[in-house]
Amino acid sequence: MTVARAVEQLLPGYPLLYFGDIARTPYGTKSPETIIDYSLRNTEFLLQKGASLIIIACNTASSVATDRLRQEFHVPIIEVVTPAAVEAIACTKNGRIGIIGTKATVKSDIYRRIITGLHPEFKVFSQECPLLVPLVEEDWTNKRETKMIIRRYLHPLQNSQIDTLVLGCTHYPLLKDLIQARIGRHVRLIDSSVEAARHLQKMLCTQPDLVKPTGAHLADHIYYVSDLTDAVQHVAARIFGRPMELHHV
Amino acid sequence: MTVARAVEQLLPGYPLLYFGDIARTPYGTKSPETIIDYSLRNTEFLLQKGASLIIIACNTASSVATDRLRQEFHVPIIEVVTPAAVEAIACTKNGRIGIIGTKATVKSDIYRRIITGLHPEFKVFSQECPLLVPLVEEDWTNKRETKMIIRRYLHPLQNSQIDTLVLGCTHYPLLKDLIQARIGRHVRLIDSSVEAARHLQKMLCTQPDLVKPTGAHLADHIYYVSDLTDAVQHVAARIFGRPMELHHV
Repeated sequence: MTVARAVEQLLPGYPLLYFGDIARTPYGTKSPETIIDYSLRNTEFLLQKGASLIIIACNTASSVATDRLRQEFHVPIIEVVTPAAVEAIACTKNGRIGIIGTKATVKSDIYRRIITGLHPEFKVFSQECPLLVPLVEEDWTNKRETKMIIRRYLHPLQNSQIDTLVLGCTHYPLLKDLIQARIGRHVRLIDSSVEAARHLQKMLCTQPDLVKPTGAHLADHIYYVSDLTDAVQHVAARIFGRPMELHHV
Repeated sequence: MTVARAVEQLLPGYPLLYFGDIARTPYGTKSPETIIDYSLRNTEFLLQKGASLIIIACNTASSVATDRLRQEFHVPIIEVVTPAAVEAIACTKNGRIGIIGTKATVKSDIYRRIITGLHPEFKVFSQECPLLVPLVEEDWTNKRETKMIIRRYLHPLQNSQIDTLVLGCTHYPLLKDLIQARIGRHVRLIDSSVEAARHLQKMLCTQPDLVKPTGAHLADHIYYVSDLTDAVQHVAARIFGRPMELHHV
């Protein structure tokens, strides 16, 4: 949802189809095999609904399923990892970059591979933070326990002299203030949701035929979810800043 | 898994087929519709594998899917809620019973309906504790943050003069010591996993034809999971006290 919100803000006049696989989340604790299976089905759903370009709006799915999705589907597929990795490379001054993400994202080692593939001299420090997803979904974004858990997760990164930290999970922008306060103002945070939307914007500048704007602000935005609860409605309203009409499919 | 362990301990000579739907857990944050859908498919799987009696080894699924499963499938179906509710009724002296469980279990109000259906004068105090499932799955069963979260969840129950508290989620036995320490030694904890196994044991005493023991200790126990990760292997070994052979299907 944080990716959809970032796309809305940067490209409000474009038609947008969102699918949130609430019935099977979280993905970050699951195996690559299962994540790929779900990602294939989710992409099929969006293509059936008429999508002509896919954004894999999840770091976990981007980390393990991108290659397979590009093999299977012959539409442009944007993922959220590479734009964030590229922005981290552009931002760092000392070549020391931190990554926080789910177990599956960190285990895939994809951020390190992209960053050191371009800059072998750079150092990447990764930390899995699995409890941050349920804490965000509980809307515990300002609780003392959440601050303590963030402190515990960030502790190993605080001795690593990073100057740049990638929020490598699309839930983490909701914890940005707590993470910034803990890691320190001298560390630049990279929001993978915003970077993916910026990357899409650049693509549409150079390849305007990929998707045509319809011009009507938010009019052609449709939000599908595979499960619907009060908690999901609440988090959606909080992320988008308005009550959201979520279609349960 | 805590239910399967309790069944193993009480009825070691009986054949046991376990299915853990790791690919789609947690259930407790999902809608009744989705939980029923998954429960139907899980039961079908176990029946295809030859089960002649089903235990719905999850409070969330027991709370919302039992009626539907009994309509669909004509085998004996045991759920984990009623045995725990009956044991709580037997244990309480002051008629004040606490229930902790997932969002879906608490929202279903099933414990209150069973208890006050039998004893309208009893008072039931329910508290949802959604973060305890991910904390157990992370194996954070002795962390300071977990103690604080338990304190926050149990706080509303501590002014209610309960003398009995149902662990209304099959994950919570792994937090039993922390919960007991927080709620106080004067409160009797009811373990829904153990009560379900005891209920099965009684059923098999009175209806021995339901399932025949094979006699070979653990030899006919097969554990299926819909997803398999290192974390699942780790938690399984911890619960069963031995390395577990989990079959990924």
